[in-house]
Amino acid sequence: MHTARFRDPAGTVRTGEWTDDGLHAAGEIYDVDAVDVLPPVSPSKIVCVGLNYVDHAAESGKDVPDRPLLFLKPPNTLSGHGDTVTLPAGPDRIDHEAELGVVIGQQCRNVDAADAEDVIAGYTCVNDLSNRDDQRQEQNWVRGKAFDNAAPIGPVVADPADVPDDAAIECRVNGETRQSSSIDALSFSPADLIAEITDFITLEPGDVIATGTPAGVSPLADGDEVVVEIEGIGALETTVRR
Amino acid sequence: MHTARFRDPAGTVRTGEWTDDGLHAAGEIYDVDAVDVLPPVSPSKIVCVGLNYVDHAAESGKDVPDRPLLFLKPPNTLSGHGDTVTLPAGPDRIDHEAELGVVIGQQCRNVDAADAEDVIAGYTCVNDLSNRDDQRQEQNWVRGKAFDNAAPIGPVVADPADVPDDAAIECRVNGETRQSSSIDALSFSPADLIAEITDFITLEPGDVIATGTPAGVSPLADGDEVVVEIEGIGALETTVRR
Repeated sequence: MHTARFRDPAGTVRTGEWTDDGLHAAGEIYDVDAVDVLPPVSPSKIVCVGLNYVDHAAESGKDVPDRPLLFLKPPNTLSGHGDTVTLPAGPDRIDHEAELGVVIGQQCRNVDAADAEDVIAGYTCVNDLSNRDDQRQEQNWVRGKAFDNAAPIGPVVADPADVPDDAAIECRVNGETRQSSSIDALSFSPADLIAEITDFITLEPGDVIATGTPAGVSPLADGDEVVVEIEGIGALETTVRR
Repeated sequence: MHTARFRDPAGTVRTGEWTDDGLHAAGEIYDVDAVDVLPPVSPSKIVCVGLNYVDHAAESGKDVPDRPLLFLKPPNTLSGHGDTVTLPAGPDRIDHEAELGVVIGQQCRNVDAADAEDVIAGYTCVNDLSNRDDQRQEQNWVRGKAFDNAAPIGPVVADPADVPDDAAIECRVNGETRQSSSIDALSFSPADLIAEITDFITLEPGDVIATGTPAGVSPLADGDEVVVEIEGIGALETTVRR
């Protein structure tokens, strides 16, 4: 089951199932192109992980750290499938980062890794847009990672059963593949991350963990069309303006 | 005018004026000791500033940076006046940090410093609780600053006119003064910070900017009673458990 949120042609925000036929909600089937697809969840926070694929850590000149490298994206970073994001003026280099997003289903704290699947509502795609100029200069990655609309997310929340353990994860820019890996290459798994984060942070329903990106990050230019696709979830499309 | 949020004895959450007589709301006057005082706002994010007083930067062995050092506290960090906060197990040293909180009154982006007062709803007290062990080790201060209840806030939002430009700011632990300064010693003013942050982040009504702490930070022990007091606002009380 793939769950989406959207604004219907009359202006009502609905939650429904996304199938090949369209969006099923309130006894109707809506054409995807006739509605405004919204982020599938409204997280109070996105907890993000850096350097969580060996190949991306290597291209960044680093090792995967001994414990997860965490950072935060607040709600101003949200953007939905099909939206056009205007990137901050000033920085030379702003990159895409295709990531598996773990959607939390219930309030939780102090979760053991062995029980983590109980608190996972499903999975989504995240594009962790990253302003490298400022990220390299600042102690905390706020200018680098928390600018408006720096977290396109969606298009759906997929049930865990829909997503293979070795699901392919890919990023394409204007149709050209830039990142291509598998989520089984994650150094810290979703269960590991939930245990680590809930050791000191309460996660709420709808919160998202962005689990890090594989190798192949590259800079974005005005007009680029970016697709983050994960097997079993779907394809998250964003147009960027500079 | 001093505005507070509280849960009345029947369980209704109310917003009212806090005077010497009590809390005025819905035609009643409630005794402060008979209600549960809540954080006065529900921020979607708290944008925090490090090393913004020369004397605290010096005690940390640093200079005030050329541009504000920013970090984030998400909503799980909230705690209200009179609450008891259980600090994370593990770290040796968790410090108090008394700070002026700037409460945003309207959605805003790209605000000029000269116009910043238009978007300020008022001021509050913040205690930026800080886990030094992890803060010293991590790239982004998430374990260090974003643990549950790491941001006691309140007790009220005070109108800007109630707070002198040189208001005294103080932190007392078990009645002993540990921090004592004036908000006119801030290196980056509230107006400077609003201009800097809204250059790339949209602030929402109720969002808070925690403007940094003066010298005198010190570690907290089990049972400590911590008061952050700012002239013209009031005294924010927190008990900590370890």
